[in-house]
Amino acid sequence: MKFSCTQENLNRGLLIVNHIANKNANLPILANVLIEADKSGIKLSTTNLEMGISCTVRGKIEEEGKATVPARLFADYINLLPNEKVDIESIVDDLKIECQKSHTKIKGLSTDEFPVIPHVEKKDTYLVKAREFKKAIASVIFAVAFDESRPEISGIYTILKNKDAVLVATDSYRLAERTISLERGGKKEQGVIVPVRTYQEVMRMLEQESEDLEITLSENQIQFSLGGVDLISRVIDGQYPDYQQIIPKEHRTAITVDVAEFSKAIKSASLFCRSGINDINLEFDKDHARILSSNTQVGENESEVVIKLEGEPNKTVFNYRYLLDGLANLGNEEAELKLVDSVNPGLLVSKGQSDYIYIIMPIKQ
Amino acid sequence: MKFSCTQENLNRGLLIVNHIANKNANLPILANVLIEADKSGIKLSTTNLEMGISCTVRGKIEEEGKATVPARLFADYINLLPNEKVDIESIVDDLKIECQKSHTKIKGLSTDEFPVIPHVEKKDTYLVKAREFKKAIASVIFAVAFDESRPEISGIYTILKNKDAVLVATDSYRLAERTISLERGGKKEQGVIVPVRTYQEVMRMLEQESEDLEITLSENQIQFSLGGVDLISRVIDGQYPDYQQIIPKEHRTAITVDVAEFSKAIKSASLFCRSGINDINLEFDKDHARILSSNTQVGENESEVVIKLEGEPNKTVFNYRYLLDGLANLGNEEAELKLVDSVNPGLLVSKGQSDYIYIIMPIKQ
Repeated sequence: MKFSCTQENLNRGLLIVNHIANKNANLPILANVLIEADKSGIKLSTTNLEMGISCTVRGKIEEEGKATVPARLFADYINLLPNEKVDIESIVDDLKIECQKSHTKIKGLSTDEFPVIPHVEKKDTYLVKAREFKKAIASVIFAVAFDESRPEISGIYTILKNKDAVLVATDSYRLAERTISLERGGKKEQGVIVPVRTYQEVMRMLEQESEDLEITLSENQIQFSLGGVDLISRVIDGQYPDYQQIIPKEHRTAITVDVAEFSKAIKSASLFCRSGINDINLEFDKDHARILSSNTQVGENESEVVIKLEGEPNKTVFNYRYLLDGLANLGNEEAELKLVDSVNPGLLVSKGQSDYIYIIMPIKQ
Repeated sequence: MKFSCTQENLNRGLLIVNHIANKNANLPILANVLIEADKSGIKLSTTNLEMGISCTVRGKIEEEGKATVPARLFADYINLLPNEKVDIESIVDDLKIECQKSHTKIKGLSTDEFPVIPHVEKKDTYLVKAREFKKAIASVIFAVAFDESRPEISGIYTILKNKDAVLVATDSYRLAERTISLERGGKKEQGVIVPVRTYQEVMRMLEQESEDLEITLSENQIQFSLGGVDLISRVIDGQYPDYQQIIPKEHRTAITVDVAEFSKAIKSASLFCRSGINDINLEFDKDHARILSSNTQVGENESEVVIKLEGEPNKTVFNYRYLLDGLANLGNEEAELKLVDSVNPGLLVSKGQSDYIYIIMPIKQ
């Protein structure tokens, strides 16, 4: 293999793919990037067996071929070079790199050891605005369960429809659902559970992108494609909980509150809640929310925030973290909180908008 | 004790003092801030027994007295309040805090438990420009030894003279010395070893300050005073090494090099040095420095940088970290490196300036 390309192109590609490669005591090749040069360009690929990412960059190919070297080292080295022409040549398993007055050899491994990254046939494809999709992921991803004993809620449930997509995340104490329009929908509605780590990588690949992201589903894989980058990931086996049934359909109380003011009062109360339980008491009357907390070791706090209330006065106890998470992700200055009582879940929505809902289970007293 | 003050004043004071207070299983009071209200104002103090810091803020004192509560909690709570009047009252050992619609009680401890922070008599005082002194600390502090078995080099040697001050740090592999003018010197020359942690706090207290810092020495203590804040610290017992004798007085080779270009080449080479040894080879001839490194596991690198050389061609082997640290702290675009041979220390200075010197021991082959 022998090619030349600009430092800028190679650097951009390596920045995208290099951090999926990681040290693995059993399989050292997983720390490597596979470099394949042929007439379509220079393809850089890494994988952690759960997902694979590849990025094709342009260059002048003198001799087709492939090689594999430690991804981090290669990326760090290329990053330090000036933005000039870089000449790369494989010598047996090693890589020779020349750029101006800098000469380097990086030890590689046999390309035979590099795992095959599965291929997804582009049959069922959906299109979505990259920037919007990134925002949608960010607004639900924090609610995913860390609990490995329930793999079905350890990912984001992704429903792709004819006109829109729905992203759902829950840890069974709270649930976030975000609906987003598709630029091009699919013929049928499909739902898959996508690992959190995959969406973290998708968010990274969508940085500063104004194009459309292409999403392709196959039986066990999902692929995200944009601007020469393909990220392919397994999906999580299992049945996502029927979350529609827990969305409260009725309420006795609806309060409207300023998000910033409410959040600040909750943070003050959080300093005095019981650690581990994180409980804060909320009491709503005609004009005011009262936020109360106390901890015999630490002290106590009580504060008031102005609200508009429709329906009956009400009260409940929430984990302050869950409430703050929801408020921070509404993307609006005014929140609406709907309650039945202190036993049933509360529903938090963005005042006047319907694309985001957030459900919180109360702490039972 | 009963007083009121603005949230802004109280918040500023707590931000300065609160992080010296830390959890200590044997002495829980060390996590607390001591609040003393009298006619001179509201004095906030914390200590970790090695050093103590106090900040006096203005307020309206209704009843003199004192109290002590957990510093972090108090600071976090005050920080969340709006910039309005805060009313504070002690009730036995607890603190009642009122601000607008927020009512809080924080559990305290008896003020009798709070350690006495020593007092330094302002006899021998020196004055230095705060911003300059902060820059001077930053340019040597990284070179201090972490080695606890040699307490005398675990601090910054601080020499206060008639016209200027000298800060020296070493870990015995490299040494940094910075000289800075005093606004007001002392009658006699004095040298003390100041703990790193103390100077880290001094740097924090000097943030955004354009005034002069007052430094006072007593037998076992050093005090830094500025704008209502007093930081008092023990000094380290022991004799600082006679470092003057290791400063090279002669050289066979003097090279002048662009700091940015040289640093980049060293970073490239560092990727291929032997880990733990961090060795890079430097060869200097008439016009060029050649930087070489190799590691049988990883690969090898060689690059060239343009230099001006006076004297003989030369070569040496340095730990790349030490060399990069020195280059980064010269505060100049051009560096001058003076060498005798590959066995004696190298001397790095800022081209055309004499207030900073950096000495590196070579790695013997």
